[in-house]
Amino acid sequence: MTDAAAIADESSSAVPSLDDAEYRAAVLDVLGLLASGELASFARLAEDAPHAPDLVDRLTISRMAAGELAHIDALESYVSSLGGDLPALMERYRDVLSDFDARTVPRDWWERLIKTYIGYSLVLDFQREVAGHLDPATRAVVDEVLADSGHGDYVVGALGPVIAAEPQIGARLALWGRRIVGEGLGVASQVLAQHPDLVKLAGQALAGGPGAMLNRLSGEHARRMGRLGLTA
Amino acid sequence: MTDAAAIADESSSAVPSLDDAEYRAAVLDVLGLLASGELASFARLAEDAPHAPDLVDRLTISRMAAGELAHIDALESYVSSLGGDLPALMERYRDVLSDFDARTVPRDWWERLIKTYIGYSLVLDFQREVAGHLDPATRAVVDEVLADSGHGDYVVGALGPVIAAEPQIGARLALWGRRIVGEGLGVASQVLAQHPDLVKLAGQALAGGPGAMLNRLSGEHARRMGRLGLTA
Repeated sequence: MTDAAAIADESSSAVPSLDDAEYRAAVLDVLGLLASGELASFARLAEDAPHAPDLVDRLTISRMAAGELAHIDALESYVSSLGGDLPALMERYRDVLSDFDARTVPRDWWERLIKTYIGYSLVLDFQREVAGHLDPATRAVVDEVLADSGHGDYVVGALGPVIAAEPQIGARLALWGRRIVGEGLGVASQVLAQHPDLVKLAGQALAGGPGAMLNRLSGEHARRMGRLGLTA
Repeated sequence: MTDAAAIADESSSAVPSLDDAEYRAAVLDVLGLLASGELASFARLAEDAPHAPDLVDRLTISRMAAGELAHIDALESYVSSLGGDLPALMERYRDVLSDFDARTVPRDWWERLIKTYIGYSLVLDFQREVAGHLDPATRAVVDEVLADSGHGDYVVGALGPVIAAEPQIGARLALWGRRIVGEGLGVASQVLAQHPDLVKLAGQALAGGPGAMLNRLSGEHARRMGRLGLTA
């Protein structure tokens, strides 16, 4: 049996159990990844907020930030119930997005909106892929944590009319979006390479491995750019 | 009767009523001030968090940030019940702390802790002074909003031992604390000068006017520096 077939066989077996020590360790790892993503989203949205053009937008985005953080409480109490320590689990993913952030400094409010829309939607999609084949108890916690914050709708509402009215701005933002997703997919593939347990947990062998996952992430990205009237 | 006596007379009269249009307008103004303070504290703590030396501290401070923001929801629903619009009320206090922030850029994590401890405790004390003589319904909302976030205890716990062990660091931070409080009292006196309705609402004439209030703020500051083993 090839390695891929072995993984596929494992993925297609019965619902995984938290009594299985190996599965449990992989679950704790993925919960650490999720919490790191939520903390990064909190920091990103909180940093965006003071740049908002008016107070209503600033409040809206600040509230989205606080909402992301609330998810961490749910993760922490679930991790504790499994005997884990959330901050220790988060350490493994600590600086995952530092390079991404350093290489994608937005020059204005629109680029900032696109960066958060594209970049953090990608983080969310990636997390959904990795968390796609969990036991029901873990799944229930994860589904709540990965719920839509409404940021995408906000960006489409705020930027869509600007892009429709000003094709030059649209062209610039399309380019910027391509840069964001390129850097983002780079991070995603790096995380997969460094954390083979995540790949195994996601059962990606069934669907073509990490490459196929990255293709699906690109597809979702194209759909999001389309919502703004932009080509990915 | 002098102006001061007239104000004192008004302050000592019966409990103010929200049916009084002038009082109600002053209350709405003070609620805008409070919400601006909470939003500024949220932004300050959220900006501090990623600089924290470890993940546990980063999470602790991020949670304090989210807690400040939750207060804004309480303010907004109360303001709505009074027929006001919170973002519009916040506009009046929009850039109050911009100069303060530009003039007090911390050079390291300790200076950052001191800035937030001293600066935002001063904002809180100022808000408590201004909101000291409100009707009971407003008071109930305000008391909850101005509750202690625990940041002071956190800073004393984190910095106290460092200062006790390293007098040179203590000396530098004492100087820094003096600069922060100097800039902060400058902002407070500017806000009082630009918003005479706040002074009137606070009933400060009874206790010696704005100058006396600033003295009380300095006293609270000295007590806080003392908790760190520093002289104000």
